[in-house]
Amino acid sequence: MNWFCEEQTPGLKLCFKYRELLHSEETPYQKIEVYDTEEYGRILLLDGKVMLTEKDGFIYHEMLVHPAMGYLKKREKVVIIGGGDGGCLKEVLKYPVKEVYVVEIDRRVVEVSKKYLSFLASSFDDPRVKVFYEDGYKWLKEREDKFDLVIVDSTDPVGPAEILFSDEFLRVVSEKSFLYVTQSESPFLHVDFLRDFLKRVKKYFPYPLVYLAWIPTYPSGMWSFVMGRKRDTDIPDSPPPGLRYYTPRLFEASRVLPVFVWKRLYSP
Amino acid sequence: MNWFCEEQTPGLKLCFKYRELLHSEETPYQKIEVYDTEEYGRILLLDGKVMLTEKDGFIYHEMLVHPAMGYLKKREKVVIIGGGDGGCLKEVLKYPVKEVYVVEIDRRVVEVSKKYLSFLASSFDDPRVKVFYEDGYKWLKEREDKFDLVIVDSTDPVGPAEILFSDEFLRVVSEKSFLYVTQSESPFLHVDFLRDFLKRVKKYFPYPLVYLAWIPTYPSGMWSFVMGRKRDTDIPDSPPPGLRYYTPRLFEASRVLPVFVWKRLYSP
Repeated sequence: MNWFCEEQTPGLKLCFKYRELLHSEETPYQKIEVYDTEEYGRILLLDGKVMLTEKDGFIYHEMLVHPAMGYLKKREKVVIIGGGDGGCLKEVLKYPVKEVYVVEIDRRVVEVSKKYLSFLASSFDDPRVKVFYEDGYKWLKEREDKFDLVIVDSTDPVGPAEILFSDEFLRVVSEKSFLYVTQSESPFLHVDFLRDFLKRVKKYFPYPLVYLAWIPTYPSGMWSFVMGRKRDTDIPDSPPPGLRYYTPRLFEASRVLPVFVWKRLYSP
Repeated sequence: MNWFCEEQTPGLKLCFKYRELLHSEETPYQKIEVYDTEEYGRILLLDGKVMLTEKDGFIYHEMLVHPAMGYLKKREKVVIIGGGDGGCLKEVLKYPVKEVYVVEIDRRVVEVSKKYLSFLASSFDDPRVKVFYEDGYKWLKEREDKFDLVIVDSTDPVGPAEILFSDEFLRVVSEKSFLYVTQSESPFLHVDFLRDFLKRVKKYFPYPLVYLAWIPTYPSGMWSFVMGRKRDTDIPDSPPPGLRYYTPRLFEASRVLPVFVWKRLYSP
């Protein structure tokens, strides 16, 4: 048995015992690796960072998708930017949506996921799904139509994903969609990023929400999401059956922030 | 710079970059180590397991102490079993308690903490504190008096701390105190333990509560606590000022469990 480690921060590493390195390649965008691990099943890494594990990936995917889907009154056209592993797509397809657009910059993420993460990526075969291998920002900017929801399922806000946290991107999203949701890093490790990002989201979506989830294999295990809303929303609909983490009541609870997060985000 | 790793589970390690190993010894009970780390400040390990770090220890200590203290109408006599690092003690002393009994089996944990973790362990100098270097179970069994609250701040339920999760111990606690609280492991990793333990707590404390917190340096980052109550409690009092994690509203939110935890604990 061997071990591989993710350097979560310069001073902290999380190491997994693994059976096999199933895949490793350098694409024009990033390094893609898939490991088969002892306790966390298959793990997808991009540039050495854990994107998902078979064991706890459901938490991230459910919490990124269901709160926003629960608020939608119309669910015809949903966009996922990033998300080439198919995990968010799988959750979105649990609703009677008409069309889901996945805009993934790196075609190889989808191809590798189809091969090694079929428990998620089989969703790409659904006839409601259209995949574009393009830069998400450019794709969205050039579309003439509007969407019900834009979901950003991205890597960290450095390198290729940096644009997805920019004012310019937020402006484009706000022109195309009433509702928007994104992962927004660890409030334990990156609360200053979150504070700054939230302020910028608020410029384009005056009713933003911040909420948290436990994601054991992400740095610090405490992860945040930001939902951009153009107006206040009603009580969310009941989710589809069979979820393993999300309930509307848990979503409400996940918006109650620990003091150190709340203070940093909301005190002057 | 060197690294040390905690083997959190057989297939997962968390590794910290450290400046110095400040202390290491084998006592009759366990191995005690204190590291000075790059990002998490000083870290206390018992038998190779992280007990607390300077950076995130406040979460564990606040969440173990303040929910139960908030429910107490009378706060004269509080017992802490374990807790030789002084972190819980520091939180308890923020209330106008009359006496706090710390019952720590290993005198060296207190001595090492006084020397290397003075930001926590200075609380031992408070005149309201009485320290006993004894087995917590035996000490409690032999006391004639009753207490307002028993807090168990223990290591994992194997080895020396196993007794602190037994029926026999729960029975003794229930004879001495109306209210009881303990850490109860990770619901992500040890939900079967939690399920079994909760059932047993309920035999002696008919109104138990389970609640969760993010503790970044504990295995999975998702940690649980069980509070044993002999009857239902009112709304908790406001906490002392200056806390960094706990609020009564956050405590309420922390009792809303993710589906996979809730199902395992409460479905037949």
